[in-house]
Amino acid sequence: MDGQDGVQEGRPAATTAAVWGEYIVVKALEDGVTIIGMTRGRETRIGHSEKLDRGEVMVAQFTEHVAAMKIRGRAQIWTRHGMVESER
Amino acid sequence: MDGQDGVQEGRPAATTAAVWGEYIVVKALEDGVTIIGMTRGRETRIGHSEKLDRGEVMVAQFTEHVAAMKIRGRAQIWTRHGMVESER
Amino acid sequence: MDGQDGVQEGRPAATTAAVWGEYIVVKALEDGVTIIGMTRGRETRIGHSEKLDRGEVMVAQFTEHVAAMKIRGRAQIWTRHGMVESER
Amino acid sequence: MDGQDGVQEGRPAATTAAVWGEYIVVKALEDGVTIIGMTRGRETRIGHSEKLDRGEVMVAQFTEHVAAMKIRGRAQIWTRHGMVESER
Amino acid sequence: MDGQDGVQEGRPAATTAAVWGEYIVVKALEDGVTIIGMTRGRETRIGHSEKLDRGEVMVAQFTEHVAAMKIRGRAQIWTRHGMVESER
Amino acid sequence: MDGQDGVQEGRPAATTAAVWGEYIVVKALEDGVTIIGMTRGRETRIGHSEKLDRGEVMVAQFTEHVAAMKIRGRAQIWTRHGMVESER
Amino acid sequence: MDGQDGVQEGRPAATTAAVWGEYIVVKALEDGVTIIGMTRGRETRIGHSEKLDRGEVMVAQFTEHVAAMKIRGRAQIWTRHGMVESER
Amino acid sequence: MDGQDGVQEGRPAATTAAVWGEYIVVKALEDGVTIIGMTRGRETRIGHSEKLDRGEVMVAQFTEHVAAMKIRGRAQIWTRHGMVESER
Amino acid sequence: MDGQDGVQEGRPAATTAAVWGEYIVVKALEDGVTIIGMTRGRETRIGHSEKLDRGEVMVAQFTEHVAAMKIRGRAQIWTRHGMVESER
Amino acid sequence: MDGQDGVQEGRPAATTAAVWGEYIVVKALEDGVTIIGMTRGRETRIGHSEKLDRGEVMVAQFTEHVAAMKIRGRAQIWTRHGMVESER
Amino acid sequence: MDGQDGVQEGRPAATTAAVWGEYIVVKALEDGVTIIGMTRGRETRIGHSEKLDRGEVMVAQFTEHVAAMKIRGRAQIWTRHGMVESER
Amino acid sequence: MDGQDGVQEGRPAATTAAVWGEYIVVKALEDGVTIIGMTRGRETRIGHSEKLDRGEVMVAQFTEHVAAMKIRGRAQIWTRHGMVESER
Repeated sequence: MDGQDGVQEGRPAATTAAVWGEYIVVKALEDGVTIIGMTRGRETRIGHSEKLDRGEVMVAQFTEHVAAMKIRGRAQIWTRHGMVESER
Repeated sequence: MDGQDGVQEGRPAATTAAVWGEYIVVKALEDGVTIIGMTRGRETRIGHSEKLDRGEVMVAQFTEHVAAMKIRGRAQIWTRHGMVESER
Repeated sequence: MDGQDGVQEGRPAATTAAVWGEYIVVKALEDGVTIIGMTRGRETRIGHSEKLDRGEVMVAQFTEHVAAMKIRGRAQIWTRHGMVESER
Repeated sequence: MDGQDGVQEGRPAATTAAVWGEYIVVKALEDGVTIIGMTRGRETRIGHSEKLDRGEVMVAQFTEHVAAMKIRGRAQIWTRHGMVESER
Repeated sequence: MDGQDGVQEGRPAATTAAVWGEYIVVKALEDGVTIIGMTRGRETRIGHSEKLDRGEVMVAQFTEHVAAMKIRGRAQIWTRHGMVESER
Repeated sequence: MDGQDGVQEGRPAATTAAVWGEYIVVKALEDGVTIIGMTRGRETRIGHSEKLDRGEVMVAQFTEHVAAMKIRGRAQIWTRHGMVESER
Repeated sequence: MDGQDGVQEGRPAATTAAVWGEYIVVKALEDGVTIIGMTRGRETRIGHSEKLDRGEVMVAQFTEHVAAMKIRGRAQIWTRHGMVESER
Repeated sequence: MDGQDGVQEGRPAATTAAVWGEYIVVKALEDGVTIIGMTRGRETRIGHSEKLDRGEVMVAQFTEHVAAMKIRGRAQIWTRHGMVESER
Repeated sequence: MDGQDGVQEGRPAATTAAVWGEYIVVKALEDGVTIIGMTRGRETRIGHSEKLDRGEVMVAQFTEHVAAMKIRGRAQIWTRHGMVESER
Repeated sequence: MDGQDGVQEGRPAATTAAVWGEYIVVKALEDGVTIIGMTRGRETRIGHSEKLDRGEVMVAQFTEHVAAMKIRGRAQIWTRHGMVESER
Repeated sequence: MDGQDGVQEGRPAATTAAVWGEYIVVKALEDGVTIIGMTRGRETRIGHSEKLDRGEVMVAQFTEHVAAMKIRGRAQIWTRHGMVESER
Repeated sequence: MDGQDGVQEGRPAATTAAVWGEYIVVKALEDGVTIIGMTRGRETRIGHSEKLDRGEVMVAQFTEHVAAMKIRGRAQIWTRHGMVESER
């Protein structure tokens, strides 16, 4: 199987299971909305930060590495508990 | 089993499980809508970007490699939380 | 068991599990509608393209090799999120 | 256990699991409706084609070997997403 | 355990699992309705054909060996997608 | 454990799983209704035939050995798809 | 563990699983109603017959040994498909 | 672990699973109502008989040893199929 | 791990599974209501008897050792089949 | 891993499974309400007793060691079968 | 993998399963509301006590170590059985 | 597999399972709202504290290390039991 092949061998099953993880949907209502991933594990640290401009939409799963997300700036956020608006 | 056979041996079960993954539906409302895959894993990087022209529809799963998607440009996006419109 | 027998031995269970995968339904509303499979895996490349003429219907699963589908041309597309029309 | 016995030993469990696969129902509204099976796997090729005459009904599962079906000619097609009519 | 005992040893679990498979119900509305089983596997061939006379009812599962069924002649067919009538 | 004990050792788990199988209910509306079991497996043959007199009711599961049932004569048949009457 | 103990060691798990099996309820509307158990397995033979007098009720599971039941005489029979009356 | 401890070691898992078994509820409407357990297994024999006086209620599971119950005398019986009254 | 620790090592998994078992609720409507546990197993014997005074409530699971319960005296009994009153 | 770490190694899986166990809610309507845990196992003995003063609420699971609970004194008790009031 | 990494190796699966455990929500309606964890295991002892001031909210799971919680002081408590108010 | 790859080998399956964990949503209604994670395990200690300013939203899972969360300051909190407002 060559390196071009989209599927690698030996990936642990656990990794793929993550594709079923819950996801949230965020729509920025202004420029500069930030989605900050907080790390999973014994220490909670800030992980990746993603900036959204007005009108952009992000669909994001919890992952092996992200157990919490913080949203800053005016946005609409859809989760399993319904929709909530973050505000500045 | 020859090379023409559509099914390879030895694929790990995990890979196939991914075919049940959640998917979203995106319909571009203008030319140049971009769907940007963000990588799963310890580092979140931009993966593949796909351009859609006005009226095109894309149906896309979360995968072993894509844990988040960002949509830029005017589009309708269907997810398990309902429909949301991205805007320019 | 001879070669005519429709069931081969030793197929990995993972392969069969794929028969339960989600599927979408596409009905072409004009000639030349294209359904483009995008590959699953670390690199997202264009896989198979299927042309539909006006009135033809295609029922297509996500597979071990297809994690996204792009539809070009006027068509009706049914997914778990409802029906959407692609446009030219 | 003799050769007449309808149940063979040693069939892998995966094979039987396929009997639970999704199925679609197609009713031909004219002679010559064609149901074309597209192969599962890295290459998508045309597999078996089945012709239906007007009024005939076919009930067909996705299988280890069929991941997509294309319907040509006037027919009613029932899937988990409802009923759709193919047209000539 | 003697030969009269209705339960054999050593049957693979997979075989029994098949008893949970989906089934369809066919009622013949005229003499000579034919239910044709199409084989599961790499090649799709005609398997068993069963003739029903007017008023007879058949309840039939998908099996390890039957992945599709074709119904010829006037009949009512109940599936998980509802009832459909085949016609001559 | 003596021979009087209603539970034998060493029965394979698969056998017991069959007790959860689907069942249908047949009520004969005239004498001589026949329920014909069709065998599961590569060859579909007629298995056991059971005669019901008017008013008798039979409750019957699909089994390791029966994958289809044919009902002849006037009867009411309840399945997961509702009730249907066979006729003479 | 002595012989008085209600729980034996070494019973196979399969046996216990059977306690979850489906059951039907039969109420005799006249004396001499008969519930006839038909054996599971390659041969379908008459197993145990149980007589009910008018007004008696029997609650009976499918078991490792009983895959079908035939009810003779006037009775009410409750199954997962609703209630049906057998008649003489 | 001493003999006073309510939990024994080494009980097979199967036994505990039985605590989830279905149960029925019987209320005696007169003295001398009898609940007769019929044994599970190749032979169906009468097992334990329990007498209820008027007004007493019994809640009883199917078990490893009881696959059917017969109720004699005036009583109300609740099962998953609803309530039925036995009569004398 | 010392003896004060509320969790012992080596408990078999089966035991814990029992915490999910079904339970019933009994409220005594007079003094001296008795809840009699009947043993699970090949022999059905009277196990523990618990007396309730008027107004007391007991919440009781089926267990590894209790497969049936008999209630004597005036009480309200809630089960998965609804509420029933025992009477004296 | 030091002793301060909240998670010990080697806990059996069974123990953790218990965190999903059913729970009941008790609100004391007077001082001195008693919740008495009855032990799981071959012998049913009184285990822990917990006193509640008026207005206090207790949320309590069935556990490896508690298979029944008896409530004395005026209280409201919520279970999967609804709410019931114990009385003095 | 360094010590900064939020995910340790070798954690037993059981531990993670606990993240799915049931949780309750408590809102203090006055200062000094106490949530007292009662230990799981053969002995029921008082574990951790958490004080809430008026208006504070706590979301708390049952854990490997906590099988019951007692709430003292005026509070609103949400559980799977609805909302209940504790009182002083 | 190089260090840039987002997916590490050898992560235990348990870790990934955590991505399905329950999450709550908190929206701060004033500056300085604090979400305090309480540790899972034999000792309950304060773990990470996260400050939210007015209008910010946090989506947070229970994790291997967090079994309870305490919210201080004016906020809206969505959980599986509905929405509750914390107050100052």
